[in-house]
Amino acid sequence: MTAELNSEILHEVFQKRAVNTHKGDYGRVLLIGGNKYLGGAILMAASASVDSGAGLTTVATDATNIGPLHARTPEAMAIDWADTVALAEQLEKSDVILVGPGMGTDEFAVQLLKTVLFGVTAKQILVVDGSAITMMAEHNLSFPLNTFTIATPHQGEWERLSNVMIKYQEDIPEMTELQRQNLNIDVLVLKKYHTQVISNDRHVELRIGGPFQATGGMGDTLAGMIAGFVGQFPEPRRATEAAVYAHSAIAEQLAGHNWVVKPSFVSSFIPNFIASIQTNL
Amino acid sequence: MTAELNSEILHEVFQKRAVNTHKGDYGRVLLIGGNKYLGGAILMAASASVDSGAGLTTVATDATNIGPLHARTPEAMAIDWADTVALAEQLEKSDVILVGPGMGTDEFAVQLLKTVLFGVTAKQILVVDGSAITMMAEHNLSFPLNTFTIATPHQGEWERLSNVMIKYQEDIPEMTELQRQNLNIDVLVLKKYHTQVISNDRHVELRIGGPFQATGGMGDTLAGMIAGFVGQFPEPRRATEAAVYAHSAIAEQLAGHNWVVKPSFVSSFIPNFIASIQTNL
Amino acid sequence: MTAELNSEILHEVFQKRAVNTHKGDYGRVLLIGGNKYLGGAILMAASASVDSGAGLTTVATDATNIGPLHARTPEAMAIDWADTVALAEQLEKSDVILVGPGMGTDEFAVQLLKTVLFGVTAKQILVVDGSAITMMAEHNLSFPLNTFTIATPHQGEWERLSNVMIKYQEDIPEMTELQRQNLNIDVLVLKKYHTQVISNDRHVELRIGGPFQATGGMGDTLAGMIAGFVGQFPEPRRATEAAVYAHSAIAEQLAGHNWVVKPSFVSSFIPNFIASIQTNL
Amino acid sequence: MTAELNSEILHEVFQKRAVNTHKGDYGRVLLIGGNKYLGGAILMAASASVDSGAGLTTVATDATNIGPLHARTPEAMAIDWADTVALAEQLEKSDVILVGPGMGTDEFAVQLLKTVLFGVTAKQILVVDGSAITMMAEHNLSFPLNTFTIATPHQGEWERLSNVMIKYQEDIPEMTELQRQNLNIDVLVLKKYHTQVISNDRHVELRIGGPFQATGGMGDTLAGMIAGFVGQFPEPRRATEAAVYAHSAIAEQLAGHNWVVKPSFVSSFIPNFIASIQTNL
Repeated sequence: MTAELNSEILHEVFQKRAVNTHKGDYGRVLLIGGNKYLGGAILMAASASVDSGAGLTTVATDATNIGPLHARTPEAMAIDWADTVALAEQLEKSDVILVGPGMGTDEFAVQLLKTVLFGVTAKQILVVDGSAITMMAEHNLSFPLNTFTIATPHQGEWERLSNVMIKYQEDIPEMTELQRQNLNIDVLVLKKYHTQVISNDRHVELRIGGPFQATGGMGDTLAGMIAGFVGQFPEPRRATEAAVYAHSAIAEQLAGHNWVVKPSFVSSFIPNFIASIQTNL
Repeated sequence: MTAELNSEILHEVFQKRAVNTHKGDYGRVLLIGGNKYLGGAILMAASASVDSGAGLTTVATDATNIGPLHARTPEAMAIDWADTVALAEQLEKSDVILVGPGMGTDEFAVQLLKTVLFGVTAKQILVVDGSAITMMAEHNLSFPLNTFTIATPHQGEWERLSNVMIKYQEDIPEMTELQRQNLNIDVLVLKKYHTQVISNDRHVELRIGGPFQATGGMGDTLAGMIAGFVGQFPEPRRATEAAVYAHSAIAEQLAGHNWVVKPSFVSSFIPNFIASIQTNL
Repeated sequence: MTAELNSEILHEVFQKRAVNTHKGDYGRVLLIGGNKYLGGAILMAASASVDSGAGLTTVATDATNIGPLHARTPEAMAIDWADTVALAEQLEKSDVILVGPGMGTDEFAVQLLKTVLFGVTAKQILVVDGSAITMMAEHNLSFPLNTFTIATPHQGEWERLSNVMIKYQEDIPEMTELQRQNLNIDVLVLKKYHTQVISNDRHVELRIGGPFQATGGMGDTLAGMIAGFVGQFPEPRRATEAAVYAHSAIAEQLAGHNWVVKPSFVSSFIPNFIASIQTNL
Repeated sequence: MTAELNSEILHEVFQKRAVNTHKGDYGRVLLIGGNKYLGGAILMAASASVDSGAGLTTVATDATNIGPLHARTPEAMAIDWADTVALAEQLEKSDVILVGPGMGTDEFAVQLLKTVLFGVTAKQILVVDGSAITMMAEHNLSFPLNTFTIATPHQGEWERLSNVMIKYQEDIPEMTELQRQNLNIDVLVLKKYHTQVISNDRHVELRIGGPFQATGGMGDTLAGMIAGFVGQFPEPRRATEAAVYAHSAIAEQLAGHNWVVKPSFVSSFIPNFIASIQTNL
């Protein structure tokens, strides 16, 4: 039986920052997504990354989203994702690359995803979410061999990606584990009623959270948190687990006085939530 | 005499969400409105839908409104309402369609309204508000036969739509009821001093609220709430009544310390208000 | 000696709204200003008008300001001030017209100001502020004969407009009163250390407020409050006095814990401030 | 040994404003920066200047940043930095000019920086930050001879600017002092673990703050605070020290309940922080 992911993960992951450190020590995070209609998704991922404490957050997106991004989150930097020079530079110097939120699945997006998949190196961490997962499945793309890779599919997306039907995902977890390895995914965040986080050394299940999270953007916020967490905390498997746990723990806290919890509201509580476990003072 | 719409409707409608549910269970809401000058109206409807807890909220609007929408409410998705391919796709897959806030009444708006009226199906719920009601009257358009339809006219708009003069609306409610049936309106929200909600099984009247709500945008927020409520709660007549009641109940609560209550302020309190009646924990 | 404007004005002006009233009863306010560089001024005036409780607030401004306006204050409607058809329509149907905040003084602005000065009628109230006052002086324009007119110059602007030197403004108030009449100004808000509000039946002086208000945008917010107040309260001389008093009273309250008080912060407290004197419940 | 910069500087610098003063007495601050990708930096500097209490804040930036600026901080005025006429006018009439945040280092930026360096006069204060420092080093530009100049390099930037290697910066502070004089820098804010503020009459070191500030935008906010402080407080060396101290003191206060402290969050607490030391009431 799958072990429960509980609050111990927070105490393990949230270690006090060393005093003599600077923003370069907490991750250069590049978030790629947001076409001209789905800009909100990448805006939520960006604020989640900034609120998580990423050292530097840069967003590669459709040019129309840059103004709204800065209006909400001036801490984030931006590039036009069609600016191939700027994109190549960012891809090269980032520590963490999240691709997918609100990216859409058109031809431009497919090419951009390929650029990312081929461009990432062994020194980087890749997070694949949302539209990018759909495109991986539709276009038979392969996750990179040498880059630590985190994928965050819903059950249906996982079925399309892995060919493990939802029924078997539930009944025969070994099939999922096998496909995770075959697909070169280092951490699989399988989003469902009780979200699972599956990596080579352990397989845990989230038992907090609830239907107050059943609203658009929740996944984009989680993806941004994962990117922000793996950029600053040392062990990416544990950092991902901590992001998954913290995301639902914050939502649950807020659900005490909110029928639904808006993803942007979850995001704004991240700095306070982490501080309630561990402070940097 | 018309029965009073009281707080019992909230307890009836706000039922705890089942734990194993996801955003797809709480309504795909499509909001159509906002020309290049009246974008604020559809922005308020959108935040009201999101704050109400709609599973997914998409806005079809003039392209200039998409940036401001995402800056305020990144949870909402958007399409350019002139993008006929995207619009057709959204019209087809949405559960609830609200048409009208800030839509204007020009030739483009008339054609768009016709597209909606002809395109909706028996599986969808249609909410007709604001400019759309004006156009229905001016162009003698018919509400769809097979779609559950909610209309939210002010008294003057109802006069133009139904030919029932305001005087008779007050004195002979049977005329309004007759015309509601003739016009194929399933729920008529007749906005006035004591707003009435009229459907085939009952006719209720709102006795809360007050002149602190007499400010632009209040109706747009109500329309967004109705869309968000009927998308997630099972019975659209009761859900509409609950939206009408909750909208004024929140405003009244806030009026304790606010001379006027801004519609956007009402919206931001919806999650908390519903939770004060019922939580998902 | 000039009488002190004190808090009694608030109790006199803030009368409970009648229950059976609607937004049309509280003023259609048109705010004209904000060129492509000075958009913030008209945005502050707009939020002040909305926060004051104006029934309907419409902003005529450079097209580039419409998105930012809706992102901050979705309650406001907008038109492109270069759209002569829309402008003529708004000028005709508005109850209150404020012209000037962030308008600039270029040729387009001069022509627009002339359009306003020639277009206003006896049924409307005109508020002339900021750049518009500068243009009145520079181009020898006349205030309209038959429209109730409020002007809000600083002392230097008043010198240029009236030819009463600042020295005489202080020493011989009769000269200011004479020029107020000669210039057809019904209410003169002479902004200075102790701002004066001068109309035909009385001449009062503000003795609250302080240097915490010495920051850009304070006047734009006051202008928006005056417009919002005269739109909803019956007597424009008293309503102007109430706006002047409330503006500084709010700032003074906030200055208890703020070194400077941002104009947008003052604005956000208007609904609460009025409710602390009078509520609509 | 370098003296500690402690809270006494706040009591020294934050002197009550004289009652009969106006915005012109508190500095016309011009902030130059923000290319089409790095607009957030200048937006943070602008809100920091406004929140600090600058009399008037104007931003010269890429035109795409003006809307987002006004959406966040309507108190700020703006010009398109490519509008040479408007820029010349602002350069001439400003009391304080900050150049650099998010400016980028392309050819346009270099030319603009040169315009600033050649254009400033003995009556103005110049603050050189961020990208501008990089360009000073890369292009061998000289700080102006007759203008009071504040520079805010990180250690690496200081190495490139002064040729004093980081190792010697630590071990032989005399070399830094020598180069500060040679380079015509009046106040050097050397950003590092314990930031130093070095001017002709004293050399102090900050011992508060911490790794909760290790996130992008912290320096842009500090630069905006320095500009806002030197614009309103009489002695620019002391005002700079006060800005450096207050910036970290606010962050430290907020870190009690925030894992990381967002720069925009620091900014929003400036008015309250100064009031906690000194009020204008």
